[in-house]
Amino acid sequence: METDTALAGQQRPDAGITHRVCYADTDAGGYVYHARYIEFAEHARNQLMYAAGYSFASLASAHGVMLVVHRVEAQHHLPARLEDSLSLRARIAWCRPSKSRWVTEARRGDVLLATITIDMVALNVRTRELARHPEPFLAALLDVGQAQA
Amino acid sequence: METDTALAGQQRPDAGITHRVCYADTDAGGYVYHARYIEFAEHARNQLMYAAGYSFASLASAHGVMLVVHRVEAQHHLPARLEDSLSLRARIAWCRPSKSRWVTEARRGDVLLATITIDMVALNVRTRELARHPEPFLAALLDVGQAQA
Amino acid sequence: METDTALAGQQRPDAGITHRVCYADTDAGGYVYHARYIEFAEHARNQLMYAAGYSFASLASAHGVMLVVHRVEAQHHLPARLEDSLSLRARIAWCRPSKSRWVTEARRGDVLLATITIDMVALNVRTRELARHPEPFLAALLDVGQAQA
Amino acid sequence: METDTALAGQQRPDAGITHRVCYADTDAGGYVYHARYIEFAEHARNQLMYAAGYSFASLASAHGVMLVVHRVEAQHHLPARLEDSLSLRARIAWCRPSKSRWVTEARRGDVLLATITIDMVALNVRTRELARHPEPFLAALLDVGQAQA
Repeated sequence: METDTALAGQQRPDAGITHRVCYADTDAGGYVYHARYIEFAEHARNQLMYAAGYSFASLASAHGVMLVVHRVEAQHHLPARLEDSLSLRARIAWCRPSKSRWVTEARRGDVLLATITIDMVALNVRTRELARHPEPFLAALLDVGQAQA
Repeated sequence: METDTALAGQQRPDAGITHRVCYADTDAGGYVYHARYIEFAEHARNQLMYAAGYSFASLASAHGVMLVVHRVEAQHHLPARLEDSLSLRARIAWCRPSKSRWVTEARRGDVLLATITIDMVALNVRTRELARHPEPFLAALLDVGQAQA
Repeated sequence: METDTALAGQQRPDAGITHRVCYADTDAGGYVYHARYIEFAEHARNQLMYAAGYSFASLASAHGVMLVVHRVEAQHHLPARLEDSLSLRARIAWCRPSKSRWVTEARRGDVLLATITIDMVALNVRTRELARHPEPFLAALLDVGQAQA
Repeated sequence: METDTALAGQQRPDAGITHRVCYADTDAGGYVYHARYIEFAEHARNQLMYAAGYSFASLASAHGVMLVVHRVEAQHHLPARLEDSLSLRARIAWCRPSKSRWVTEARRGDVLLATITIDMVALNVRTRELARHPEPFLAALLDVGQAQA
């Protein structure tokens, strides 16, 4: 697991992000617009991937795969407002060879505001046909997730 | 069904919209970005509401309610590309007193690209507490939907 | 002007678009978010291009060029609100071999709300080096603009 | 200058932000979509405001003013790509009683990619009429800017 080794001696990157709500995120109802959480979730998923030592570029160059969103589900529990400080953290719920489920929770302090569940499929970068998630990639993602729990 | 009567003598507004994919909708993968369909679905839902003779303004002023997104689900069947001409059409799947399910289908010609399912709850505009969907509003929405089938 | 001939027998596409402001366009201040006008302007520019008989695809395949935004300027005169019906219309202010200026006006009825000025440069699709705007393309754009005046 | 005192004993918040380009920021041309820089600039401006000890909420509650975008100008020097790490930093170029100019530079390492210039006007929160920028607010903004230079 070279990826882990590479990170062993340095501060481990945290897989969560913090975002302070700006006008661009909100709508005339005074809350964060619902589709905006889907973008927040991409940030959090990417951050989990980076924390695991991977990037879209390395997935493509080393493994020939790209990840594509197949299904989105978002539950809105409570609204967020302008200047709220949100914490966003993604984790892997499960993974099969060609599909993985990424769950992102948006919180304000301890309060859960929204849960965004995204199913990703792996595609071959050239043919765009269904491919397998690289094994070491999933292992690294799960490893980062456990280290945080 | 006063709403229908009011529209009888004029061209009936269609509840669907057409959208030609622009750069703003796409991402570096070459396809429409997944969260963008959630925005397309808002356009289609609003158009259904307008076709039924309602608006956010009239819902608030005549009935004291606003609609808020409670849950989002989107299935991505096939990708859309820059300059694709998409047709987007919303319909009501079911409605309960305080919650309604709006399903929007995005098609390119006859091909179904994505299905976006949004659950809306009605809130009292002032108190932001749960409210009932106005009966004539739901009747008009269902009526517009049947006229199109 | 083959482009015009091709359109002669059919309804001439209008170079303007109408857009009814949805929640996605607005922010917590209650108005349309300023960056959203920049997206509206892309729609209007694309529509002008289509009305002139061109597309991004035809520019690339027939002329080997793509257009890239080099400079943006937007003046906000008056705010737009949720459900306002906006008309957006683009025109060419001037063009030089490799750069063109596209001006889009956003109006609500007769009232000018915003003016968005975009300078585009033409790039060679393969090399991404500066290229010339195809002559017939600019002629067709100017022709559509005059027909509307 | 209470704001400064309050921050004296702790790590001074930096007025810049770092953003790693995600799919949501990019378009089918493979670069960051031009309107997206306008949103990045809002983040950087807000961060400058927070570093100066202010917020939209405190401007409204303590001074009765809100800031509204009056004019946008963006120069695109070089494109940014997916996963590029951008640094965004805002500064005040000048301020008059009711209008201020905020300049944000987007860089990748030492390379300047885009310059976004935003003119803000202060409005009375209730009447939405032109107001003055609060003096201590501008002083704190300029102070933060100098501390960084």
